[in-house]
Amino acid sequence: MIALLETQDVDFKIRFEELLKRGAMDILSVEGRVKELLESIKQKGKNAVVEQVSRFDNWEPKDFLDLKISQTQMQEAYEKLDTKLKKALQKAYERIYAFHSKQLPKTWLDFEENGSILGQKVSAVDRAGLYIPGGKAAYPSSLLMNAIPAIVAGVKEIVVCTPTPNNEINPLLLAAMHLCGIKEAYKIGGASAIGVMAYGCEELQKVDVISGPGNIYVATAKKLVFGEVNIDMIAGPSEIGIIATPKAKVEYLAWDLLSQAEHDEMASSILITPSQSLAKEVALKIDEFLQQLPRKEITTNSINQRGAVIVTKDLDEAIFLMNQIAPEHLELIVENPLEILPKIKHAGAIFIGENTPEPIGDYIAGPNHTLPTGGSAKFFSPLCVDHFMKKSSIIAFSQQAIQELGEDCGILAHTEGLDAHQNSVLVRLNQK
Amino acid sequence: MIALLETQDVDFKIRFEELLKRGAMDILSVEGRVKELLESIKQKGKNAVVEQVSRFDNWEPKDFLDLKISQTQMQEAYEKLDTKLKKALQKAYERIYAFHSKQLPKTWLDFEENGSILGQKVSAVDRAGLYIPGGKAAYPSSLLMNAIPAIVAGVKEIVVCTPTPNNEINPLLLAAMHLCGIKEAYKIGGASAIGVMAYGCEELQKVDVISGPGNIYVATAKKLVFGEVNIDMIAGPSEIGIIATPKAKVEYLAWDLLSQAEHDEMASSILITPSQSLAKEVALKIDEFLQQLPRKEITTNSINQRGAVIVTKDLDEAIFLMNQIAPEHLELIVENPLEILPKIKHAGAIFIGENTPEPIGDYIAGPNHTLPTGGSAKFFSPLCVDHFMKKSSIIAFSQQAIQELGEDCGILAHTEGLDAHQNSVLVRLNQK
Repeated sequence: MIALLETQDVDFKIRFEELLKRGAMDILSVEGRVKELLESIKQKGKNAVVEQVSRFDNWEPKDFLDLKISQTQMQEAYEKLDTKLKKALQKAYERIYAFHSKQLPKTWLDFEENGSILGQKVSAVDRAGLYIPGGKAAYPSSLLMNAIPAIVAGVKEIVVCTPTPNNEINPLLLAAMHLCGIKEAYKIGGASAIGVMAYGCEELQKVDVISGPGNIYVATAKKLVFGEVNIDMIAGPSEIGIIATPKAKVEYLAWDLLSQAEHDEMASSILITPSQSLAKEVALKIDEFLQQLPRKEITTNSINQRGAVIVTKDLDEAIFLMNQIAPEHLELIVENPLEILPKIKHAGAIFIGENTPEPIGDYIAGPNHTLPTGGSAKFFSPLCVDHFMKKSSIIAFSQQAIQELGEDCGILAHTEGLDAHQNSVLVRLNQK
Repeated sequence: MIALLETQDVDFKIRFEELLKRGAMDILSVEGRVKELLESIKQKGKNAVVEQVSRFDNWEPKDFLDLKISQTQMQEAYEKLDTKLKKALQKAYERIYAFHSKQLPKTWLDFEENGSILGQKVSAVDRAGLYIPGGKAAYPSSLLMNAIPAIVAGVKEIVVCTPTPNNEINPLLLAAMHLCGIKEAYKIGGASAIGVMAYGCEELQKVDVISGPGNIYVATAKKLVFGEVNIDMIAGPSEIGIIATPKAKVEYLAWDLLSQAEHDEMASSILITPSQSLAKEVALKIDEFLQQLPRKEITTNSINQRGAVIVTKDLDEAIFLMNQIAPEHLELIVENPLEILPKIKHAGAIFIGENTPEPIGDYIAGPNHTLPTGGSAKFFSPLCVDHFMKKSSIIAFSQQAIQELGEDCGILAHTEGLDAHQNSVLVRLNQK
């Protein structure tokens, strides 16, 4: 049974603090091992990668080229897709592409009266690396959600790495690669994939940005290579928070909470409502629905250990608590969502109204499903086109501008004890 | 003497590779010590911070409150400023503020014909922490460049930490804090400052984002706390790259190269030109100007050990090499800069034309002076308003939209083996 809390409970504060710590990953526990894998790739290049794949994925690649996934394989998998599935995948591609196109930042320039030009140039990175989990939990939707922002950004070279235990590739993932026009993909997983994309090797040129979900080894490796490359974020287990008022439909809430719980035993599903009766009905309904699920065991563990239904004294208190949680996914199933939207401070994605179940955002709505977890929505953003682009400032001073501002600039430089700085301005004013 | 290279030299490739490695910081060498400092703050809170300040800064704070810098101190320092300096600082503030205001991203919503709404909400983080180096190298300009983007973003709570060796605060830094309206500031430096801002303690609430320059201890601490908070970037020693054609003025080039070299022995200053005679003249002029500088020793070491003048066969080769360097600061001192601007792929900031010496961007032009170094301009951007904001996706489906797209969504969810996901959609279609 999911935990039922009331904000009036004497131990509420302590139990709520526990919920806030939900996303903590024990990176230290795997850091040593991940460092060894990365260091080995840095030192020994492709041979280390081949050795690591054969160690972890239960097959023996002959050499690095053996790790390459061909475009023919991708195309064949795509052509074999069931028609309905192919149509659904295409629809998803179109909608995700359309949404991300609206994010595309533009270069801008601004002209000053004194004749100078200031601005910001925005351009795609040269090369992006996408990590897509494989094996049992191979999600073609993850490929779409990572590749499309890079495509929209205009990244010319996109590399995909995915683990293939027993040398088996998920055909759906292959089909999604074809749909996204992926030209370079490798059967490499975990920290090894992050390492080879960050440092490069004889057969694989280093990338500039790495994005994509993964387990604690992947997350740790991404944190370790950050600076060598840019990364999207460090994401942990999935989460949903729902704010609901008494009239919300019990079945909707139960399925929506279960949809995150079925991802992972570490996933967390939290409903906050001012209605005690709704809270109880949802808790019971979850238990009923759980019985129907193929992933019953994972889902039950997640619900029992990490789920919670919280009863508050009013809607404002529900919002106050949810802002502290800063959930990855937030559903607002309330009568007038626009009334409370301005009060929502932190969430990866906000799903508004009863017709917007969270899974619609995982697949087909358009916005990205790679979202900040564990409260990091307070400072991280959904994966977006920006993650695959970078900016350069542009400064072009006119002679008038340097005359007008040179002296002030020189004073500031001199004050900071930087005389060559000052002189580089004064020499333009013929004062040096 | 600065190193003179020609792309025709037999050993050019090897020597150029060395230049490309300029920014490498040996984070591993200090990681252990930094981890200890951070862990101690995590465990022992304010007492650890007080202990670390007394250990590193050569004074004995009585308690944590003793580390606080008062707004009265800031105001007094500001009022005592020399009139010309005050005016220069105000001018800098205005121009930096104006430029960053143009960066401010906006929340957007998009309405679909089927009645659904998709969009992206942009809001400031709650709390930002700025690290400003102190002691001898206290740069009030760094405070302006870090505080103003946070102010423009709309961050309500801004915390400043700066080291104060011997309990002495640089009065200019204090004055700049007053100008920026800083309300919360502490005499805490290095890894201790990053730790206490990232984890918080009894007297200082944790922040969401940390920005600001610093030495290798600060850079390492920032990397270690990344994920706990967001950070601006991991920046190393300063750099300038200049592309110049034969008519460029020798004195300008020499001072501009020296202006970065005087920052730091690790700084690197690189001129690339197709003109052998210009290259030689600049090298000689640098030696001449070096004699005039108060920071002669640092500057000489930087120029001799990390500087380079490279002669190419033509302008295109110069651009090709510079794109590989991806310098923090890039000056284009060429006849027709607009002709080569589209070919420039990577640089933190681009200074166009002979009236735009790099120092003008350090102080007063408007764009930020916190820029990606060591080649990371290939994937990092200048510090900007975005660093102090975060986004949430917004999804509000209409009943028509869920009817239209629900089935495709369900197919994709089922295909990935996520049946609760599918059910949360089907229940809305009355199919569950």
